[in-house]
Amino acid sequence: MHVSTKDTPHARWRSLALGGVSLSEGFWADKQATNRDVSLQRGYQKLEEFGNIDNLRLAAGLQEGAYRGPVFMDSDLYKWLEAVAYDLAIAPDPHLAGLAEGVIDLLAAAQAAPSAGEDGYLNSYWQVVRPDDRWADLDHGHELYCAGHLIEAAIAFHRATGGARLLGIARRFADYIDSEFGPGRREGTSGHPEIELALVELYRETSERRYLDLARLFVDRRGRQKLGTGARHFGPEYHQDRVPVREATTVEGHAVRQLYLTAGVSDLYLETGEQALMDAMARQWRDLTTRKMHLTAGFGARFTGEAFGDAYELPSDRCYCETCASIAAMMWNWRMLLATGDARYADLLERSLYNGFLSGISLDGERYFYVNPLQSRGGIERPEWYGCACCPPNIMRQIALVGHYVATASEAGVQIHQYMPSVVSVEQDGGPSAVLRLETRYPWSGDVRLTIEQTTGHPWQLSLRVPKWCCAGGVRVNGEPEAVVTGGKYAVIERPWQVGDIVDLSLPMEPVLIEANPRIDAIRGSLAIQRGPIVYCVEHADQEPGIDLLDVRISSDARMQAQWHEDLLGGVMAVDVQGTVVDIGDWKTQLYRPVSQGDGSAPPKREVTLRAVPYYAWANRGPGAMRVWIPALR
Amino acid sequence: MHVSTKDTPHARWRSLALGGVSLSEGFWADKQATNRDVSLQRGYQKLEEFGNIDNLRLAAGLQEGAYRGPVFMDSDLYKWLEAVAYDLAIAPDPHLAGLAEGVIDLLAAAQAAPSAGEDGYLNSYWQVVRPDDRWADLDHGHELYCAGHLIEAAIAFHRATGGARLLGIARRFADYIDSEFGPGRREGTSGHPEIELALVELYRETSERRYLDLARLFVDRRGRQKLGTGARHFGPEYHQDRVPVREATTVEGHAVRQLYLTAGVSDLYLETGEQALMDAMARQWRDLTTRKMHLTAGFGARFTGEAFGDAYELPSDRCYCETCASIAAMMWNWRMLLATGDARYADLLERSLYNGFLSGISLDGERYFYVNPLQSRGGIERPEWYGCACCPPNIMRQIALVGHYVATASEAGVQIHQYMPSVVSVEQDGGPSAVLRLETRYPWSGDVRLTIEQTTGHPWQLSLRVPKWCCAGGVRVNGEPEAVVTGGKYAVIERPWQVGDIVDLSLPMEPVLIEANPRIDAIRGSLAIQRGPIVYCVEHADQEPGIDLLDVRISSDARMQAQWHEDLLGGVMAVDVQGTVVDIGDWKTQLYRPVSQGDGSAPPKREVTLRAVPYYAWANRGPGAMRVWIPALR
Repeated sequence: MHVSTKDTPHARWRSLALGGVSLSEGFWADKQATNRDVSLQRGYQKLEEFGNIDNLRLAAGLQEGAYRGPVFMDSDLYKWLEAVAYDLAIAPDPHLAGLAEGVIDLLAAAQAAPSAGEDGYLNSYWQVVRPDDRWADLDHGHELYCAGHLIEAAIAFHRATGGARLLGIARRFADYIDSEFGPGRREGTSGHPEIELALVELYRETSERRYLDLARLFVDRRGRQKLGTGARHFGPEYHQDRVPVREATTVEGHAVRQLYLTAGVSDLYLETGEQALMDAMARQWRDLTTRKMHLTAGFGARFTGEAFGDAYELPSDRCYCETCASIAAMMWNWRMLLATGDARYADLLERSLYNGFLSGISLDGERYFYVNPLQSRGGIERPEWYGCACCPPNIMRQIALVGHYVATASEAGVQIHQYMPSVVSVEQDGGPSAVLRLETRYPWSGDVRLTIEQTTGHPWQLSLRVPKWCCAGGVRVNGEPEAVVTGGKYAVIERPWQVGDIVDLSLPMEPVLIEANPRIDAIRGSLAIQRGPIVYCVEHADQEPGIDLLDVRISSDARMQAQWHEDLLGGVMAVDVQGTVVDIGDWKTQLYRPVSQGDGSAPPKREVTLRAVPYYAWANRGPGAMRVWIPALR
Repeated sequence: MHVSTKDTPHARWRSLALGGVSLSEGFWADKQATNRDVSLQRGYQKLEEFGNIDNLRLAAGLQEGAYRGPVFMDSDLYKWLEAVAYDLAIAPDPHLAGLAEGVIDLLAAAQAAPSAGEDGYLNSYWQVVRPDDRWADLDHGHELYCAGHLIEAAIAFHRATGGARLLGIARRFADYIDSEFGPGRREGTSGHPEIELALVELYRETSERRYLDLARLFVDRRGRQKLGTGARHFGPEYHQDRVPVREATTVEGHAVRQLYLTAGVSDLYLETGEQALMDAMARQWRDLTTRKMHLTAGFGARFTGEAFGDAYELPSDRCYCETCASIAAMMWNWRMLLATGDARYADLLERSLYNGFLSGISLDGERYFYVNPLQSRGGIERPEWYGCACCPPNIMRQIALVGHYVATASEAGVQIHQYMPSVVSVEQDGGPSAVLRLETRYPWSGDVRLTIEQTTGHPWQLSLRVPKWCCAGGVRVNGEPEAVVTGGKYAVIERPWQVGDIVDLSLPMEPVLIEANPRIDAIRGSLAIQRGPIVYCVEHADQEPGIDLLDVRISSDARMQAQWHEDLLGGVMAVDVQGTVVDIGDWKTQLYRPVSQGDGSAPPKREVTLRAVPYYAWANRGPGAMRVWIPALR
């Protein structure tokens, strides 16, 4: 997940070293504290309870019993390890560090066990359940997928703690994979992408060119329609094996698979500069954002095949919007931003971060959503864990690493993309080094103050993203107006920065109503509320008694008022909106009737004030109804 | 499927004997000819090709090899047999009769084989694959479900041909089931209802009270939350085991399972008169028709669990609407009509018959739909068969028996429910006997002529359904105006009927626009076209080149014109409707934006004439886009 582009030739902007951004307080620092104190601790318990750790004990020959859970159980543990590594980079935690060391002991033992053949292979399912069948099921076996997550965790530990033991385990496995799948060997590629981006990162960490070459081979081998062809399978499209990567024009099939793949392909571009890869990425990004994205930057329309579905197929109630898909989209957008310096990627990353991603975890850090609908008619609750638990530890690693998305650097200067109270430390040879302090109440306020705490003496450019949701952002330097920049661009201020210089960015943040593309059937004639980067929803718990969210309407000129509520949902800016309850009258007894008074509208009954709260905070107060899209009064 | 209520105490109206209605020509007689000449013949080939028949050869020990297909493969064959029986009741067909006899030979051999234990058991999957595990998986094992279809087929053969061999096989199995599940024995009930209605019908056929008692036991045992409780199962709701049958207030879970169950429970009511059963049926029917029904009388909103989903969850694109669910709904509505004499059940039966059911088969009788969406953005085609092929032979038996739904009789007289060119023969002891000839071009015309060809001398009531889609139907007798009756009721004419009397029913049939309940989010602000019992759709193949069905609109006062097209889709009344193509302009590059000009509407670009065709006939000309619900111009 952490990307190191220090020596990456085709990165326009470079990501910062792990620890380059430390969050000091506020929205995300609070999330990180909950992640550390609650989610990571309970996560370990769940990994024990559900068998992920026992499976490794079985593989290591330390325990008798039966393998439990789906084939990719190891990967949940790897993501938890990666999250712990990022958390240790924030602050020491001997307890978590000890738990992680225990897991690494187990991994070492499992890799050394006879069931692993002592060739570097490591996968508890295949070692325990089907020891003679390695690589027999590239479609669904998840061996390369799990290996990818092992590699990511190992790199994270290496970068966070300097500890190389897990990296050694991962490299032995990677070397074995290379010996099996490298040039002239097995022709296969992974049914679930992930290994590609991991191998590129392993190349970045080790400078071993073989890993980059292998990543490229895995990408090159896609599009031959060899995956997903068995009976009862979802077809090559599900696995992104329908067309070669360089010919892709759409995002398709399983959303998480697709978005991990595009992240890996973007990584490959960053290292190779191959234009055909970037062209394909640009086409797929356009398809994603103009045809297959929910307002929350959740992705995936269908339960069946966890798939994107058709263009404009974007239901609110039965959308899929897997939390992992929003995470994968952030990973992809981050790489696209590094490659291009185009603000739209940071904008989209932000949309996922505060909405489609963050809805995946409860406010107390104890419960999760795998699927993130934009409408509930009631009855949906967050479970503590899942039998298929890819999302919870993925959320943990993303929260622990959220500071990664704050800033980048280049020869020209420093770029700030996401606004969080933090200290940003830039150290580079080929460009300015500096320490900046960010102070803000973002995402509740659009006022951001940056203070230069250290800087090299030469002039350099400070680039500040003015989000697309903002009409225009104003910049003052040391109190003097400097620039006004329209949303969706960077405000760039070049000067010989002095320690103590203060830059104030002002992003006016008011509630706005959002309308949807008329080709989206599922939310026709409906409006949503957004304020700054946050998409809102109306939830049953906040409304007057007796209001059925099936029967509320708002008009396109509805009055809205944002107000801070310290005690609501951990502290949120709520938006009160003028609404109407309609009279459904005869419709209680029928679903369809010949047109009488128009096109299915219902007469207004009474005016009400609806309270909207941030979508990410829904389903923390029981299984009441919720909706993001509210029908417009007509 | 054929219901004999000759001696049923709580049937207000009695169904006619098999063969009591013979279709002479027209819409359904043509379908029956295609069914006989194409579907039943190719169906047999498919049952050979996919292994259904081989599986029985394996069970009978006549062949070596591996079982193929899902666990319920026998039931597909039983439904095909039942269809052949109904077809033989229409006209002799030595070839089909010979094929059926061969299958019955196989069933006899499989039941006599050692793998069946010689106790009457019969199920190729469990005999071949898991011979020691009978009844081990009531959730998904489908043993009782398959037995139910065997019983239905056996009764059909007995009624159609007098042949008792298959009935003997079925009774031996039923007796064995009774010995296993009867009072004081195993407490279980079937994960997939079907056995209940079959056992009631077996009681009707044999007068063996044990079968009725066993059906009741299977019903009484539901609602204990014992089904669907394993890991990765869908829960008791999926199997209608969440609440006791008599306490049910909603239809829920797997739609076909639910509707087979309600059909069986209604059968139980017809025989026992237990009011608690009828009360539950009435509540569930209200839930079905006011909250969970598509315009086409297709049922089931979700792919996941093939389930009803929430109230008002009725998507057009990703609805499920399994063909079998419409068939099951017709079976239920027929029983409710027999029990109550309420026209609404015949109305709903008609809606399924011409729409949600009939869309399940191609015009040439060679291809099928398992799932029947109301919208396609393109890419959906009918396959020749399915790995899970419950629907194709279910369609065959329904088409062969469609005349069953035309008429009933009672002490008071004769009731006509569905209008097809036919001869209706009523023979009864406790009421009038008569022969009526129906002539009509229904469903294209609402003019129906009935001629009394034979009658007993006493006065009796002729009841003619005036469909709910019709404002009012006029009746003339021998040319003289007799009555005008509003839609949704029966016109009842009592007189001493004479041979040669002519009754003319006139049901004005014009295209109308339909609006939907505003609680249905998925089709908000959209309109559909209906003419008589037929729901229409716009399909890509019929529109001007360049029209994208995502961008068309109609207004609620759009001009419509129906016109007969002899060469279109086997002969249909098409409806041309005045429409508008809108300009989606900037929306090509974005999915969401702050409200500017309203609520996601788009400006009109040009007027067009859209051609609408009957929904049932869609997807016979390639995989082009289709929609039933057309957004209203605003």
